[in-house]
Amino acid sequence: MEIVFQPDGKRVRVEKGITVMEAAIVAGVPLETVCGGKGVCGKCKVKLIKGRSLGEEIGEGLMLACKTKMISDAVIEIPVETRLLEQKILVGGMERKIPLNPNIRKVYLKLTKPSLSDQMADLNRITRALGKRDIIVENVRLGFIRQLPVKLRKSDFRVTVILVGNDLVGIEKGDTTGKKYGIAFDIGTTTVVGYLVDLNTGKEVSYASRMNPQVVYGDDVVSRIDFAKTDVGLRKLNDKIMQALDEIIDEVSVGIDKENVYEMSIVGNTCMLHLFLNIPPTSLALSPYVSALKGPVDIRASELGIKVNDDANIHVLPTIAGFVGADTVGVLLASLLDEGDDVRLAIDIGTNVEIALGSKEKIIACSAAAGPAFEGAHIQHGMRAAPGAIHRVSISDGDVRVETIDDAKARGITGSGLVDAVAEMLKSEVINHSGKISDDPEITSLYGDRLIQEKDGAAFILAEGITVTQSDIRELQLAKGAIYAGAHILMKELGVKTHDIAEILLAGAFGTYMPKENAQVIGLIPDIPLDRVKDIGNAAGVGSKMALISKNARLRAEIISKKVGYVELSGRKDFQDEFMDAMFFPHANLDYFPHVKKLLANSISFR
Amino acid sequence: MEIVFQPDGKRVRVEKGITVMEAAIVAGVPLETVCGGKGVCGKCKVKLIKGRSLGEEIGEGLMLACKTKMISDAVIEIPVETRLLEQKILVGGMERKIPLNPNIRKVYLKLTKPSLSDQMADLNRITRALGKRDIIVENVRLGFIRQLPVKLRKSDFRVTVILVGNDLVGIEKGDTTGKKYGIAFDIGTTTVVGYLVDLNTGKEVSYASRMNPQVVYGDDVVSRIDFAKTDVGLRKLNDKIMQALDEIIDEVSVGIDKENVYEMSIVGNTCMLHLFLNIPPTSLALSPYVSALKGPVDIRASELGIKVNDDANIHVLPTIAGFVGADTVGVLLASLLDEGDDVRLAIDIGTNVEIALGSKEKIIACSAAAGPAFEGAHIQHGMRAAPGAIHRVSISDGDVRVETIDDAKARGITGSGLVDAVAEMLKSEVINHSGKISDDPEITSLYGDRLIQEKDGAAFILAEGITVTQSDIRELQLAKGAIYAGAHILMKELGVKTHDIAEILLAGAFGTYMPKENAQVIGLIPDIPLDRVKDIGNAAGVGSKMALISKNARLRAEIISKKVGYVELSGRKDFQDEFMDAMFFPHANLDYFPHVKKLLANSISFR
Repeated sequence: MEIVFQPDGKRVRVEKGITVMEAAIVAGVPLETVCGGKGVCGKCKVKLIKGRSLGEEIGEGLMLACKTKMISDAVIEIPVETRLLEQKILVGGMERKIPLNPNIRKVYLKLTKPSLSDQMADLNRITRALGKRDIIVENVRLGFIRQLPVKLRKSDFRVTVILVGNDLVGIEKGDTTGKKYGIAFDIGTTTVVGYLVDLNTGKEVSYASRMNPQVVYGDDVVSRIDFAKTDVGLRKLNDKIMQALDEIIDEVSVGIDKENVYEMSIVGNTCMLHLFLNIPPTSLALSPYVSALKGPVDIRASELGIKVNDDANIHVLPTIAGFVGADTVGVLLASLLDEGDDVRLAIDIGTNVEIALGSKEKIIACSAAAGPAFEGAHIQHGMRAAPGAIHRVSISDGDVRVETIDDAKARGITGSGLVDAVAEMLKSEVINHSGKISDDPEITSLYGDRLIQEKDGAAFILAEGITVTQSDIRELQLAKGAIYAGAHILMKELGVKTHDIAEILLAGAFGTYMPKENAQVIGLIPDIPLDRVKDIGNAAGVGSKMALISKNARLRAEIISKKVGYVELSGRKDFQDEFMDAMFFPHANLDYFPHVKKLLANSISFR
Repeated sequence: MEIVFQPDGKRVRVEKGITVMEAAIVAGVPLETVCGGKGVCGKCKVKLIKGRSLGEEIGEGLMLACKTKMISDAVIEIPVETRLLEQKILVGGMERKIPLNPNIRKVYLKLTKPSLSDQMADLNRITRALGKRDIIVENVRLGFIRQLPVKLRKSDFRVTVILVGNDLVGIEKGDTTGKKYGIAFDIGTTTVVGYLVDLNTGKEVSYASRMNPQVVYGDDVVSRIDFAKTDVGLRKLNDKIMQALDEIIDEVSVGIDKENVYEMSIVGNTCMLHLFLNIPPTSLALSPYVSALKGPVDIRASELGIKVNDDANIHVLPTIAGFVGADTVGVLLASLLDEGDDVRLAIDIGTNVEIALGSKEKIIACSAAAGPAFEGAHIQHGMRAAPGAIHRVSISDGDVRVETIDDAKARGITGSGLVDAVAEMLKSEVINHSGKISDDPEITSLYGDRLIQEKDGAAFILAEGITVTQSDIRELQLAKGAIYAGAHILMKELGVKTHDIAEILLAGAFGTYMPKENAQVIGLIPDIPLDRVKDIGNAAGVGSKMALISKNARLRAEIISKKVGYVELSGRKDFQDEFMDAMFFPHANLDYFPHVKKLLANSISFR
């Protein structure tokens, strides 16, 4: 059944019986609602232009979207006043509009004072006043009631109340509606980033990042899970991440009162979320790799010990599977993979790599254990992007050029520098199809002193004291092999060929700096025209920000979490073959890389 | 609009558009529901015999009560399988049936274990299994998720989960469904009572009571509120009541594990509830006498520091007004005042007296500041019911007889003893219509040495060392005057004459021991035939028990809380006059007491 929303013309395929409100969320068309779809506020008026529905007309051909169920194909018009205010957000240079309707509301109330003819209890006085504004209170925290009698009387019955969803959680004297902040977090295995957002405008105020201090207990997810086997280990990891969050909160909230931070959103891989919530992650690492929960989770700041307003709500986005976490949901939210007509491939490269492929019809995802090569670990001269790191390399006809960050003296090589170096070595035949450093006299004579033997094997000198070793190349082969094999298995599952992929979206810090052409040369990503390979920056973090400022984005996240299919690579018989083939540069089957094949034809002989 | 439920024939007047489920609750007809009225479980099937409704038929003329709205007078038949299991409960010797459907559920689950082809997250595995039993989970506590992975694997995926309402709160290894307890509390100003109930059967297992230890900070509500003015004072009062609850919990739960107590219900006057919840009660005592909340409140045991299962739910029943609290709601629940065809008068006599008058058509209530005379305070030889307390008195022709508790030597006089004594003194003309102790020579000669002058005035010797003083009589006049004036104002409000009152229900410990005839003689209660004056014991406590074992009772309590009209006596111009008139024995207007008037005609001359 198809519903078309006018004036945008957005189309969506839905099941019979869905409400117009639900269909609008799926279609990404934001509708105004104060009561949250309870049929009370009357804000979500829409017009049925074509099609059949179950529901009452409320005059002038209008119906409430939350109360109207669709039973046929339809065209629905959304009047201007029903459209929700939207906020622009940049995703990798592209502008996205998302509805500004945070889960947190502040409402200033001038209450009528009690008298012998109006003895209504304090709390009921508040809910009565809110009811006049169509706000229906569902729950009230005890802490709220305890403060209520004194705060009301000290403020002459003029107060600002704070609602998380439909729950009354806080009360402040006078009108404080102007001060309403939230923080969006992206908790990575290696890096933690926080963005302070003004929830009245949806705009980012500041951001800060930290190394995830859990790294002292293990570089990767598997070693963290191992460390968290005991209660003490779990507690230590939880303490570390809380400490990082506190530091980031302090840094981003300079100039505002932390008490005015009422909401936080969290994305991260499934393991990071377990450690953040202090849930034992052990079963994540053991076959059949089961997580404790899929999410989402909403929890009070005070219950987690996070130092913002005690009553703040911490929203943890939902995950897709044990190794495809809320960070991937964030990437999908930001990239709108679930709204596209064409098949696109999104790859989030961090310590773990998550890959998703699909369109609004269907999306599937998997996780690839690429290891930390792209972040410089296990690479002899690997380092992070910092002054002196080689991040660009070109090699031709015996000439080797490197670019370092800040043009400082070369101190090491970044992940993108390594991709560049290896691709250039391949094109100039310093290494061959299988990744082996050449001992061909023609090559050794051309590159002279750069080709050396270290105690662990052959190596190639990029700059003074900085080499790419045979073992570095093997690490990169394992990493890129895992990523390409994952992507290729998703392509097989969806029956998609390389040329069917409309776009490749690269997320994560590494994606931003990735030398795209050379990434294709080594076979890290499928061989499609380069103008369709886009970096979308820290899309997981952008997804976290979207969920912070928009309840619609949260609902979309839940839909994504439920509808994206997970492909468990370890459960597949074909994975080892795919992985072995993908370790070649660019691949054992060169037909998958037609452009790269042409490029290399002149420079390398395939054995 | 009237709905009749068959086969009971229960009738109820409701607003157009109400669901059959709601109407059934109002009518006190319990319907089966697993999903809580979400239209999911299909248990609440009913048959529309006559009338019109909005809703879908689901075959064989049956409809779901939760999904069917009534739009005309109707007759509805409830099939046997839709009827909820009921539990008998005794209220003052009368048997009431109430549906056994506690808010707490324990469900034993044998889960299928995860595998590579079923990687569902632990929590979703639980909710999937519950969903198959039509149980829809709404919220999950973080503590639940934290325990989940380990408990599941240590119990081979055989666990009992605990639900409060639709929230998942606890998990236990193996099948523990047999152990499910709750405690119903009645927190009085003077006495606190707790009843341990087996929630699998609805039966009381044990009970215990304590003096409310807050009495050291003040006898009555007003002095407690005064003491709670400061944070320190409030904290002390809260500590005291928590200590009493802990002691009672320890006493009633001998032989069971306190961890298996998952639910508590609380009634009490509005002030006691504020102190229990640690909410400043100051504004309750100051005009216009406003409480912080009307209730109900549901809160976690751990948040209040109550030592049962941390995840237990504490349900505080709703109140009617600042001085008509959840205890009165409990009395109305137990007495079914809201279901009766005839007008009845319920009086709960404690340190505060609450009075309610009405039928299923309408109920109004007020609070009377009777003071603690009935509990022995401010009475020279007043004492509680204990060995040696005079509790029955008869006087005639110069002869005075007293009965003491356990026939011990007289040590003092109880409230009921005082009512008896004063009524007997009135009938034998020792005092007159206005309460003055006689100095008539005929009387003084008859009662000889019993009529004495103490330093504070005249007194009458009941037994060796035990007198009723003129000032004791004045205290009783104030108390009974306040009660009768309150009752009489309610009668005026409802347009009810004495002979219209079908029954008088006396609740509270004092009600149980009340000498009913003599209570009428002094004009404490309206003058209706004695066989229609019933004591219903600790009805507030029974109401608390009903709310503990039955969600239907909680819903009824909420309806009562909203629909009972409150009459603020201090806001009425006629209260002082009514009060002055009611201080006479039995009343300034003897036409209100026709039988008493006849009775006294022979023995007393009215001046």
